[in-house]
Amino acid sequence: MTESRFPVDGDRLQQDIERNAQFGTIATENGRGRTVLPGTTPNQQARESLVERLIFADLTVDTDAVGNITGTWLPEGCDPEAPPVAVGSHLDSVPNGGIFDGPLGVYAALEAVRALQDADVSTTRPIQVVCFTGEEGTRFADGVLGSSVAAGLLDIATALELSDGTETLREALEDIGFHGEGRLDATDWHAWLELHVEQSQRLEQLDVSAGVVTTINGTTRLHGTIEGTPEHTGSTSMADRTDALAAASEFVLAVEQAAQAAAETDPTAVATVGELSVDPGAVNVVPGQVEFSVDIRAVNQSVIDRLVDRAESKLEALEADRGVETTLDCSYDVSPADMAPSCRAALHDAGDALGIETVDVHSGAGHDTMQIATATDAGLLFAPSRGGHSHNPLEWTDWWDCAAATEVLTEALYSLATNGADT
Amino acid sequence: MTESRFPVDGDRLQQDIERNAQFGTIATENGRGRTVLPGTTPNQQARESLVERLIFADLTVDTDAVGNITGTWLPEGCDPEAPPVAVGSHLDSVPNGGIFDGPLGVYAALEAVRALQDADVSTTRPIQVVCFTGEEGTRFADGVLGSSVAAGLLDIATALELSDGTETLREALEDIGFHGEGRLDATDWHAWLELHVEQSQRLEQLDVSAGVVTTINGTTRLHGTIEGTPEHTGSTSMADRTDALAAASEFVLAVEQAAQAAAETDPTAVATVGELSVDPGAVNVVPGQVEFSVDIRAVNQSVIDRLVDRAESKLEALEADRGVETTLDCSYDVSPADMAPSCRAALHDAGDALGIETVDVHSGAGHDTMQIATATDAGLLFAPSRGGHSHNPLEWTDWWDCAAATEVLTEALYSLATNGADT
Repeated sequence: MTESRFPVDGDRLQQDIERNAQFGTIATENGRGRTVLPGTTPNQQARESLVERLIFADLTVDTDAVGNITGTWLPEGCDPEAPPVAVGSHLDSVPNGGIFDGPLGVYAALEAVRALQDADVSTTRPIQVVCFTGEEGTRFADGVLGSSVAAGLLDIATALELSDGTETLREALEDIGFHGEGRLDATDWHAWLELHVEQSQRLEQLDVSAGVVTTINGTTRLHGTIEGTPEHTGSTSMADRTDALAAASEFVLAVEQAAQAAAETDPTAVATVGELSVDPGAVNVVPGQVEFSVDIRAVNQSVIDRLVDRAESKLEALEADRGVETTLDCSYDVSPADMAPSCRAALHDAGDALGIETVDVHSGAGHDTMQIATATDAGLLFAPSRGGHSHNPLEWTDWWDCAAATEVLTEALYSLATNGADT
Repeated sequence: MTESRFPVDGDRLQQDIERNAQFGTIATENGRGRTVLPGTTPNQQARESLVERLIFADLTVDTDAVGNITGTWLPEGCDPEAPPVAVGSHLDSVPNGGIFDGPLGVYAALEAVRALQDADVSTTRPIQVVCFTGEEGTRFADGVLGSSVAAGLLDIATALELSDGTETLREALEDIGFHGEGRLDATDWHAWLELHVEQSQRLEQLDVSAGVVTTINGTTRLHGTIEGTPEHTGSTSMADRTDALAAASEFVLAVEQAAQAAAETDPTAVATVGELSVDPGAVNVVPGQVEFSVDIRAVNQSVIDRLVDRAESKLEALEADRGVETTLDCSYDVSPADMAPSCRAALHDAGDALGIETVDVHSGAGHDTMQIATATDAGLLFAPSRGGHSHNPLEWTDWWDCAAATEVLTEALYSLATNGADT
């Protein structure tokens, strides 16, 4: 590894991530977990702490109407009117999530700016450190909420009225003091970079600190119901029952089998029934209704479409075979997103300059970057996840890998923010 | 049909059941539903209304430590020291249950006493109208709570400490004013009768108003867990995942298939996974843990034992095939219960005397009577359920059938309470 022109301070980065990990922290036997749903008190604490750190680094802080936070750096030599380069991620988590998914990208972005400041260099474009609202999709929307607004894919008014059943996004943001004004607009940016944990084991197995994403999987999410007849378990003979859960069990296995078959030709193909609830859900009542969600992903849209077809045809078969009634709606649909060649090149070149090996990988998970890629040139960099664990307290990225990936991010950021500021 | 010696007042019975149906009533498009969990406000209202009606019929009301209510009738010609004949059922319901399951038996018992009073006859034994606490098993216990205490199968202290996670039975009964003193003891009774809705379609299909139960199915309930690995749905390839819900789906289908096979030789055999919950239950997390219950019933204990074996061996196979970890515990176990020949004969003879056809049936559902059958001679009479519906708002028994079955109950009660009071 070569000495960086802009050495990052790995301890400072670690301290930031450790501080952030205290918000919404959960008791766990193994690993370190947190629950930081958007618009909750832990989310407020995480946001306030970020704002404090952005101000401490002399960045100008803004919050837009849907709570996206920016910290803008205008170094002395930059053209303040030039389209900035933006860099960041998100601070919210899934329930019982890990401490790196999101926060690494936000604080690596801040550390990149601090490293450039420490090296006493200027860029020709402004740099914006960004924290998007509601990436995980555990509240108000199915995910990438703030970045969808920034990309112009979701309008502010619609977003603010999204409800979790108890309160709207607007109310939640007002409660935590992060309902700002205006709309962060990604079409204003020259380019966008995000550093994120990989959430799978490829980099670990290759012993490489940085993966440059080629394509982010498309994601289609379905929400469905299966209706049977709730009857007494003891007095309804096996022949007389229409059991919604038995039908749903066939569906879950059909989804799994279809995805396993698809993965034989496209290994990025995955399909999961992650949510399933039974009504009335009593020990002595035959299940009357099941509600479920399906999450389908692949880098090829045709593979996704085929898996959706398979889900639909299985439900039709269950209606015919078991007498259940079913519904299936698409609740979320994002096409596969190719990363910009300019950003991919900047990240690979940065690795080369630093003597840090980089490899091409696809992203199985969705990220804010897939939305931003529809509005401007976008790049996504992965740091290795130990054991591939993510969305649970076992999620872990070695501090050394965090620092190395942040070195790559910093070098690429400098490059994108310095060349051709007049274009 | 022959004119009864003790004609019941069908309108009065209907009014009682209609009044009781107002407590815990739920909005529903079809049918009439109620949710009356033990120890809740609707349960308090239902109990207070019953007590009022018992007192109005000149019965002496008592409540024992676990909330079992009795109304004792000592007609002029009876020996107050003779072992009484008891008759009744329960007033609690499953969530979104129907209006007949339980209340028909309680108010038919009261109506039987009123019919004897109206006919101005006396019995030689006292008669006790009984309402048991917590038959359905939706709170504090898996079911037949009050009758288990009355039968001496569960001690008062243990019962009172049962908790729903928020409060104990003792606290709930104190709150609603039905934590009395002492223990209603079914071994003190000469005999016990219960009228209940059939909850299946046999009587309707035979066009018969009264079924005399031969045996009540035994019931074994299992509670289990399946543990997989919660990982990100997008970044965990199909080959790398250990999906607890996919494993659970195989289990649900295996339970269904085993019960269908058993029902070919013993049609009373049923097995149901009625409860199943997924953790963390997020659209983008591979299910990490599933918790479920299994309800297994048959009139033959050997059939139940074989189905339990099948459930155990399927979980073992899932551990080997899918790498999940599993647990399975028995949470409830009641043996098949044969009804007393004396009570069966009294019910058949009553039908014959009244010109109301009676048929032998088994009971698929468990009832308080199966617990009482371990302590004294017990009989169970069924009234037809339209469409076999039960445990949902479609549950219905024609008022004509309610009255006819209550005539049979009254005649049998008189017979059991009048002959051989010195034994």
